[in-house]
Amino acid sequence: MIVKGNLQISTEIQKGLIRMGQRAHNFNAGPAALPLPVLRAIQENLLDFRGSGMSITEISHRSALFEEVMNDAIERATRLLGLDDTYHVLFIQGGASQQFCMVPMNLALAGSPVDYINTGIWSTKAIKEAQIQGKDVRIIATSEEKNFSYVPTDYTVDKEASYLHFTSNNTIMGTQWQQYPDGKDVPLIADMSSDFMSHPVDVKPFGLIYAGAQKNLGPSGIAMVIIRDDMLERVPENLPTILKYTTFKDSKSLFNTPPTFTIYAIDLVLTWLEETVGGLEEIDKINKKKASLIYEAIDSSEIYHGIAEVNSRSLMNVTFRLSDEKLEKRFVAEAKKNGFEGLNGHRSLGGCRVSLYNAVTIDSVKSLVTFMKGFETQYI
Amino acid sequence: MIVKGNLQISTEIQKGLIRMGQRAHNFNAGPAALPLPVLRAIQENLLDFRGSGMSITEISHRSALFEEVMNDAIERATRLLGLDDTYHVLFIQGGASQQFCMVPMNLALAGSPVDYINTGIWSTKAIKEAQIQGKDVRIIATSEEKNFSYVPTDYTVDKEASYLHFTSNNTIMGTQWQQYPDGKDVPLIADMSSDFMSHPVDVKPFGLIYAGAQKNLGPSGIAMVIIRDDMLERVPENLPTILKYTTFKDSKSLFNTPPTFTIYAIDLVLTWLEETVGGLEEIDKINKKKASLIYEAIDSSEIYHGIAEVNSRSLMNVTFRLSDEKLEKRFVAEAKKNGFEGLNGHRSLGGCRVSLYNAVTIDSVKSLVTFMKGFETQYI
Repeated sequence: MIVKGNLQISTEIQKGLIRMGQRAHNFNAGPAALPLPVLRAIQENLLDFRGSGMSITEISHRSALFEEVMNDAIERATRLLGLDDTYHVLFIQGGASQQFCMVPMNLALAGSPVDYINTGIWSTKAIKEAQIQGKDVRIIATSEEKNFSYVPTDYTVDKEASYLHFTSNNTIMGTQWQQYPDGKDVPLIADMSSDFMSHPVDVKPFGLIYAGAQKNLGPSGIAMVIIRDDMLERVPENLPTILKYTTFKDSKSLFNTPPTFTIYAIDLVLTWLEETVGGLEEIDKINKKKASLIYEAIDSSEIYHGIAEVNSRSLMNVTFRLSDEKLEKRFVAEAKKNGFEGLNGHRSLGGCRVSLYNAVTIDSVKSLVTFMKGFETQYI
Repeated sequence: MIVKGNLQISTEIQKGLIRMGQRAHNFNAGPAALPLPVLRAIQENLLDFRGSGMSITEISHRSALFEEVMNDAIERATRLLGLDDTYHVLFIQGGASQQFCMVPMNLALAGSPVDYINTGIWSTKAIKEAQIQGKDVRIIATSEEKNFSYVPTDYTVDKEASYLHFTSNNTIMGTQWQQYPDGKDVPLIADMSSDFMSHPVDVKPFGLIYAGAQKNLGPSGIAMVIIRDDMLERVPENLPTILKYTTFKDSKSLFNTPPTFTIYAIDLVLTWLEETVGGLEEIDKINKKKASLIYEAIDSSEIYHGIAEVNSRSLMNVTFRLSDEKLEKRFVAEAKKNGFEGLNGHRSLGGCRVSLYNAVTIDSVKSLVTFMKGFETQYI
């Protein structure tokens, strides 16, 4: 077995629920599958959180009960990522999109350019927000000329830059950085929304990492932000209070009422990841196994054609096409009838996409591969 | 019975759960009590939302399933508030605190002052954010000289102002506007976080109303914003995309992934409010009844002393003191032992506070009054 403890039990429960038609094989791109034991824990405790007689949604964010949840989530994230005390774990509302705006606003140094690598729609959005603010934005590499089907490796990091920003995994095209840039003295900043906590990361070169929760962390409505001390020193005094990283660091993310339910769910997911799965190295092995099963099915097939270039392939989002749009629609529809959800590609690209976030089980993946092979024999 | 249908059944269930020590009488100031039928509906459907085989937290915000939830919430809010089609219902992350920043950023007219009435800590924070942005802020009335224990009625609205901003209910001191300002030609803007949807409102004079969800609407992590067409015309072009009201209006609050679970819970609360309670006039009657029970207990007592001036008293947050801090602590502690939660005053003020948001039942209030009387006979 690749997973341990409670999860093994819950895998059996999950199989049972799927057999009974009560749970789908969920390959959604985000919001996405959550670990079944997490959902069951939320469900079980929803009317009475830790004997308080109140729901987690009904208690004060300043109560000892919630403080315990918040601290536990922060400590687990710190341990899982191996952060030293120069790094701080923050929870900020607005998802990655709000970070597109906060990063240049807080971290661009006066008279110094901000550098971006453009690997897709999400990078493009981040670049646009820096431009709106009138920053000196330089795009030092892009894969736009090939419709973002690969991650550029040919670029030069310029030490004059305030920071170098990139998107670690590109959900739409299904590409993922295989090796992060060597920032030298330039702090790296990454939007890791769609592969955060899916594999170990050496955080040292990073000034800031941010991730919308709704892929590997929990329900939507929050970003986890990992920020290094020296970045906090850059924050201009005169920004709106809620847009300053220092506000969240100084208040331990309690400047205003945070999404308490969402943080509680994240704490449960991190508990599952740390205690049941066994941490980032373990989940990385599982994720590699899951992705390889699908990529093998694609590469050995005559009807499925991978979209991303092979050496940029994502472990989180596998994208492929069939011979025509009609067949793709038939594939998605027939999959849905068989209990496989979320296989349509992003609305901007079309095609098919299998999202394989942490909570997607290897059993779901094996079932999908079986279905894909069956579909192929039927339509070839 | 003051309530109808399902709620009546659930009131019986609630009494049973309280008798069994499984549910508290929840008087928290926010995040606060949610209607029990809402929590039960969330619980029941958590693993399988409408037969999808997925949790509400696991489905795409662009799926037909979620779109239905979002549209239902918007339509219910529209009906409950009696909005015509010049008003738009938006969901924006960051709670009221983000609105403190967005209101002046979006709605201050060039060369025209922005006017505020200061009735407490939340107004003060809203004022501070307008000042940080360098707006021409005028405080046309304040009750600060009496520690915000009343709502000013003596002020002159100046038609030169971009808008007039006030806080409709002040959770900390326990004051509430009894009659809104006559804005004449100046659009009113109100932070209604703590009494939104607790009574009918004539929205016509309002250019914008905002409310953090965690009092009367649902879990924390979102604000509902009601905005009028002419306000949208004021939004400057060059703002960060996620800070523009037009972004949320144009995308139907789906510019980025919204907190889907929270919006789902809000939809359930609005369903309860509309269908079980019967709308804002009905909940207003119930809220008046609840508040009058507590105020009567205070006014007829020798040990409880109301903090807010009588003609500014809030129906949502009843604040009072006992003779000394020691007795207040004893009151809160003994209440807690008897299943009454959240009776401590705000940390900046001390004393005691009973928050009576929509989901607090009249039975809980009656039980508290009985407890208060018993405590009085014991300690007098």
